[in-house]
Amino acid sequence: MADCWLVFSAQMPIKEGNRTMRAEILSIGSEMTSGQNFDTNGPWLSRALAGLGIATAFRTTLGDDPEDNRQAFRLASERADVVVSTGGLGPTRDDLTREILAELAGVPLDFHAESWGKILEIFSARNRPCPERNRVQAMAPRGADMLENPRGTAPGVWMRLNRAHVACLPGPPREMHGMFDEQVAPRLRAAGLVPGVRLERRIHTFGLGESAVEDRLGNLTDRGNDPEVGITASDATITLRIFASGSDEASARDRIAPIEARIRDTLASLVFGADEETLAGVVLRDLDRCRMRLAVAEGVTGGGLSQVLAAESWQGMRWFVGGVVLRTTDAESWGGLSEVTRRAHGGHGEQAARELAEAARLRLGTELGLATVGQDGDGPSAGQVWVALSHPGGFVTRSQHWFCAPVEVCSRTAKLALDTARLFLADQPGFGGKHS
Amino acid sequence: MADCWLVFSAQMPIKEGNRTMRAEILSIGSEMTSGQNFDTNGPWLSRALAGLGIATAFRTTLGDDPEDNRQAFRLASERADVVVSTGGLGPTRDDLTREILAELAGVPLDFHAESWGKILEIFSARNRPCPERNRVQAMAPRGADMLENPRGTAPGVWMRLNRAHVACLPGPPREMHGMFDEQVAPRLRAAGLVPGVRLERRIHTFGLGESAVEDRLGNLTDRGNDPEVGITASDATITLRIFASGSDEASARDRIAPIEARIRDTLASLVFGADEETLAGVVLRDLDRCRMRLAVAEGVTGGGLSQVLAAESWQGMRWFVGGVVLRTTDAESWGGLSEVTRRAHGGHGEQAARELAEAARLRLGTELGLATVGQDGDGPSAGQVWVALSHPGGFVTRSQHWFCAPVEVCSRTAKLALDTARLFLADQPGFGGKHS
Repeated sequence: MADCWLVFSAQMPIKEGNRTMRAEILSIGSEMTSGQNFDTNGPWLSRALAGLGIATAFRTTLGDDPEDNRQAFRLASERADVVVSTGGLGPTRDDLTREILAELAGVPLDFHAESWGKILEIFSARNRPCPERNRVQAMAPRGADMLENPRGTAPGVWMRLNRAHVACLPGPPREMHGMFDEQVAPRLRAAGLVPGVRLERRIHTFGLGESAVEDRLGNLTDRGNDPEVGITASDATITLRIFASGSDEASARDRIAPIEARIRDTLASLVFGADEETLAGVVLRDLDRCRMRLAVAEGVTGGGLSQVLAAESWQGMRWFVGGVVLRTTDAESWGGLSEVTRRAHGGHGEQAARELAEAARLRLGTELGLATVGQDGDGPSAGQVWVALSHPGGFVTRSQHWFCAPVEVCSRTAKLALDTARLFLADQPGFGGKHS
Repeated sequence: MADCWLVFSAQMPIKEGNRTMRAEILSIGSEMTSGQNFDTNGPWLSRALAGLGIATAFRTTLGDDPEDNRQAFRLASERADVVVSTGGLGPTRDDLTREILAELAGVPLDFHAESWGKILEIFSARNRPCPERNRVQAMAPRGADMLENPRGTAPGVWMRLNRAHVACLPGPPREMHGMFDEQVAPRLRAAGLVPGVRLERRIHTFGLGESAVEDRLGNLTDRGNDPEVGITASDATITLRIFASGSDEASARDRIAPIEARIRDTLASLVFGADEETLAGVVLRDLDRCRMRLAVAEGVTGGGLSQVLAAESWQGMRWFVGGVVLRTTDAESWGGLSEVTRRAHGGHGEQAARELAEAARLRLGTELGLATVGQDGDGPSAGQVWVALSHPGGFVTRSQHWFCAPVEVCSRTAKLALDTARLFLADQPGFGGKHS
C-alpha cells in the first residue's frame, strides 16, 4: 500500500475535549469578487487545515475595500479560532491587510529591518532596483511575528486578534503553500490547535459507472460511516475516497487499511491505482516491467492518447515510441487500413481498429499496437467507439457508446484504450533485475 | 469586430445616483468548506451580477450548519442590496435554506401545490417514484416567490429580507445558471436594481511576454482608466481585457471600439483573435480559407498539437489530416528523419524540424507540414524547442527557449507551431465561393 494523503474531508471537525476548532479563511482581492479569477487558495487552505484536523467554518472572499476588510477581519477573529488570510500584502495602496490588523489590534505598525534586508536581497538577486514603496512590506503590527517568504517579496504576519490566531499570507499560490506548510502549520501545532491528523486515501477505478460501483460496495459509502467513504466521478474515472482520523498518521492509516482491502476485494480488476496514479502512468510502468514497446494509431482520440502517454513518460523512457494520428481517409491509407475495411466501415468499427492497431505495431516494430476509432461529432452514431490492442499473440478489442460532449468522447476513449492495455499487461510476466 | 461579452470586471461598482449597489453571494455546502469541491458558482454569479452592473462585495462559503447559516443570511441581508445563495435547497435534513429564511423573516413555511405538481412530473418523466421527503422542496417562507427550476427538482426562492432582495438557487451549475438568467435577472431589473450594462472584450496575442506587451501599450493599462484595460497571461497567450459600462449594450460597445482599434494597431500581427477564438481555431479557419491541408510531425509536443487541432476541427472538416508522433529514434526514422540529421542533432534542432515537417507534408500529400522538436525534460537544454512549417515554396522555422515545467513546454510549443502556421497563412490568398 502506497502512502496515504494528509487530508481534508466533508465531515464534521474533530473535537478536542469539549472544544471544536473552527477556522475562517479570508481571500482578499477585487479580481476575485469580480469573478475574474477563481479563488484556488481558499479550497487549498481548507484541505491543508483539515489535514491538521481543523475544520473550516467559513470562507469569505472580499475586495480591496478598507471598510469591508475591517468588518471581515473583526468578524472572523471573533467567530473562529484560526483565521488565515491570503492577499492584501503587496506594496501598493490597495494592499490593506497590515494597516487593518494594526487598527483592529489598537497597535502601531513597526518596521522590521531584517525583513527589509531580505526584500532588498531578492531584488538584487534579480538585478532589479527595489522601489521605495516596497518598504511597507517590512512593516507589521506591533507584537506580531513576521512570516518569512523565501519565494517572493511579501512576508506574512502571525498574530493574535480577539479569539483567533491570525496568519496573513501573500496571494500567489506557490509562495502561500510553502509558507503555510513551513511556518503556519508548526505555529498552529505549537499553539496547541492541532488535535490530530486526518488522512485521505483515493482508490481509482475505470470500467463501471458511479452508481454501479456504489451498488457493488453495499453500505460502504453510507453517510456517517467512520472511516467515511466518498465517491466521485471525473471523466469516466470513478474514485473512492476514504477519510480517517487518528491521533497520529500510523493510527489513521491503520483505520484506512481494512476499508481499502474491502474495496479492492470487491472491485477487483476495476481498480487501476491509488492517490496520484493515472491510467497512463500504470500502463507505462507495466510496459517497463514487461519490457514491451507500444505504438498507437489514433482516430477518434486525435492525439490525446499520445499526449497523456508522452506527458507521463519519464526522462529517457523508451516504451512509448509514438504513432500516427489519422483524421481523414488519406491518413487512414497511410496508417495501413485496407481499402476493403475503409469501404466497409467508413474507417469505424472493430475491424478497422484491429487493422490500425496491427499496422502501428508492425510499422513501428513494437510488441504492442493500440488503436482508437469512432465518431466524435454529432449525429446518431456519435460517441460509438472501438479500441483494439494488437499483440504478438492476437488482439483484444473493446467498444463503448459514450453519451457525452465530443471532447469527452476523446478523453474517455483514450482512457478506454489505456485500460485495455492495462488489463492485458497485468496478465503478462515481468522481467526481474535492471533493464535498459 | 465580433460581439462583445456581457461581463464582469475588477473595477468599482457602478453608482446609481448616490447609491452603490452591493451584492453578497452565499455558497452553501460542507463539500466546499472542506476544500473537496471548488466553488465555481460564486465566481459565475459575480460575473453574472457584474454583467448587470452590480458589484459583489462579499462571497461567503459556509457548510450545512444551522447556526452558521442563520448568521450568514442575517449578515448578508443587512449589508448587501442583493443576496444570491446557492445550495441548501435539496430534500434532505442537511438542506436548511428554506427553514432559516422563514425563521429570520419571522414567517411560517407555506406549501405550494403547483411546485409540488412540477416535482412529481419530473420524477414521473424519469420513471422514478418521488420520495415523500421531496415534498419539502415545494415549501417556501410565506410571502416569497417560488423560482421555477425546469432542469431539476429544487425550485428556488425569491424574497425580501432586511435591506436585501434575496434569491436562493440550487447548487448544480446547469440548473443555477438557467434560473439566474431567466428568473433572477428579470426580477433584479424589475426591482430597479440594474443600473446599466457592462461589457468585456478580450484581445488575444501570442509571441511576446506580458510585460513587453504592456510596455508597447503605454498608459493604456493604467489603473483608473475608463474603459479599463487589464492584462492577463495564460500559458504564453497574453490577453488584453477591455471593460466598458454604458446605459445599454450599444453605448458600451461604442466605448470599447476605439480602445480595441488602438490595441490592434499597436500590436499588429501579435494579435491572433478575440473573445472565444483560439490559435488552433484561427489556423483551421485559415486552412479552410486557403484550401490547404495540414499534416503534423510531433516530437516535443507528443500529440498535443494534433489534439488541439482535432478538438477544434468541426464536423466533416478535412484540412487537418493527422500526422505522426515521434518519441524515439525508431519512430524518427519512420517519420523520415535522415540518418545524418539524427546523428548531428540527436533528433533536435532546426534541421531536424525542417526534415520532419517536409516528411509529414510529402508522405501525407498535403500542402503544409508542421513539426515540433526539442527537449521537454530536465537538463541544461530542457525547454529549447524548434518548430518548422514546410510549404510548397520552402520553410518557415522558429525556435524558443521556454523556462517552465515540461508539461508547459509541450503546450507552449504547440502554440508556437500554430502561431507559425497562422502567420504564414495570413499572407496567403484565399479562395472565394464554396468549396468541398
